Amino acid sequence: MYVNRRRVTIEWGDCDPAGIVFYPRYFAMFDASTAHLFAAVLGMHKREMIAKFEMIGFPMVDTAARFFVPSKFGDEVTIETQATDLGRSSFGISHRVFRTGGVLAIEATEKRVWAGVHPEDPHRITGIPIPEIVRAALESGPLERQP
Amino acid sequence: MYVNRRRVTIEWGDCDPAGIVFYPRYFAMFDASTAHLFAAVLGMHKREMIAKFEMIGFPMVDTAARFFVPSKFGDEVTIETQATDLGRSSFGISHRVFRTGGVLAIEATEKRVWAGVHPEDPHRITGIPIPEIVRAALESGPLERQP
Amino acid sequence: MYVNRRRVTIEWGDCDPAGIVFYPRYFAMFDASTAHLFAAVLGMHKREMIAKFEMIGFPMVDTAARFFVPSKFGDEVTIETQATDLGRSSFGISHRVFRTGGVLAIEATEKRVWAGVHPEDPHRITGIPIPEIVRAALESGPLERQP
Amino acid sequence: MYVNRRRVTIEWGDCDPAGIVFYPRYFAMFDASTAHLFAAVLGMHKREMIAKFEMIGFPMVDTAARFFVPSKFGDEVTIETQATDLGRSSFGISHRVFRTGGVLAIEATEKRVWAGVHPEDPHRITGIPIPEIVRAALESGPLERQP
Repeated sequence: MYVNRRRVTIEWGDCDPAGIVFYPRYFAMFDASTAHLFAAVLGMHKREMIAKFEMIGFPMVDTAARFFVPSKFGDEVTIETQATDLGRSSFGISHRVFRTGGVLAIEATEKRVWAGVHPEDPHRITGIPIPEIVRAALESGPLERQP
Repeated sequence: MYVNRRRVTIEWGDCDPAGIVFYPRYFAMFDASTAHLFAAVLGMHKREMIAKFEMIGFPMVDTAARFFVPSKFGDEVTIETQATDLGRSSFGISHRVFRTGGVLAIEATEKRVWAGVHPEDPHRITGIPIPEIVRAALESGPLERQP
Repeated sequence: MYVNRRRVTIEWGDCDPAGIVFYPRYFAMFDASTAHLFAAVLGMHKREMIAKFEMIGFPMVDTAARFFVPSKFGDEVTIETQATDLGRSSFGISHRVFRTGGVLAIEATEKRVWAGVHPEDPHRITGIPIPEIVRAALESGPLERQP
Repeated sequence: MYVNRRRVTIEWGDCDPAGIVFYPRYFAMFDASTAHLFAAVLGMHKREMIAKFEMIGFPMVDTAARFFVPSKFGDEVTIETQATDLGRSSFGISHRVFRTGGVLAIEATEKRVWAGVHPEDPHRITGIPIPEIVRAALESGPLERQP
């Protein structure tokens, strides 16, 4: 699977009175990292994805995180994000947060569903099939632009 | 104008490494307080308001806050919220945060607009007239239920 | 184990463009719920706990959540929180979020450590033993005030 | 005064059910932008500043913002930040948010105080003089490294 990396600076406002990141903030970073993975491999933002693939997002089914090393404001971390398994409409995501020097600080997993409006009830959302092009891009990385 | 009061407990996660509330969190509390003011005087949640009055919300035009006394996690504060002036489609809101003992900790003001979908372009939003019943409720408080 | 319950109103600002709670906000609610559990059984706020027990907090070791039913702004949910197991210095917490009508919306677990300053290095934090009075209160609920 | 610029991507989790940025999130971005201004001109992170200058931060005295154009998730904005006036221990900050194409979306102002521990009471904080080197760097930009 393709791995997307991004650098995140820990800000003062991400941290709690103990001076370390308030852990719910990591989940906001992970949610953005999942969006950035799709943006990187598909070459489009989530808003364009939603329009192009007639979906409404990828709501979370379950998530878990293990925290090994705390980070403080001013620290820079690298978040590595990749798909882990691709079902028909559900998929797994893995995030790994590294401190400078390559120390693993956090491991997190997500199970999400590729969701659209229910075909028979516009007020319900339901899992819809992950498009083949999305599947291929998550596996192999940014698609070659054909000439 | 009717004044709505609510108690808010300052949580650990609202605070920064200096141990005091990270000030953007106050704006989230104020946004909720504005919604609670409408809920109190109209007897309905923002979601019902949006449906009943065919509006889409009340986006912020400008806001300001002055911070006199910091608060820490574990503190309880009282937020007093009221409309200050009512234009055709724009309105002002005032929030005052009090510490235990009645000490004024923060004063904030908002100017918002009562907004709906533009009648000629469904992708634009525009100010629409504040309904009379809303205006009356902000002025006089929860409306009497007629028998 | 003692179960603490609290009502939480889902605010506009807790929700994302899909109109449902942005899931990292749940973790902020859970962190507050854990603090409220201790406040309920010990009769003191986290700030007093930190002073009384010479600890610095209870950092997260790992956490997980499963999301069954989404909630929208204006909804009220009940969060039930209890300790699940009590080690020497680590402990488990369970949160269950219920929608009106008793529908289970989310299940979450936490593993945390009761932490203090390392006795030999003031810049390090380390697990310290959970005091007996805390252990008893988490098991049996608010302690009887002796006359 | 020196102007620092940074690019910020608007994330899904920054936005509300109307699909636009939940305005308290802008204040978190502005707080980070103020820290980045100091980091840019002094060549050190806020954590180093706090240690080097024996201060504890720069708490907000008052702030205001005017919102002209909303932004949506997937948008990139540029935030321009500079000091506006420099008193003995208080200072002003201006933020301007631009959309792609140079459209001004938000103007915000801050008044903050350069704060340290009160010399006679370690539990109180007080304004302390802004160091000359900080003042010069805010005015003229990153200082030349002397050989």
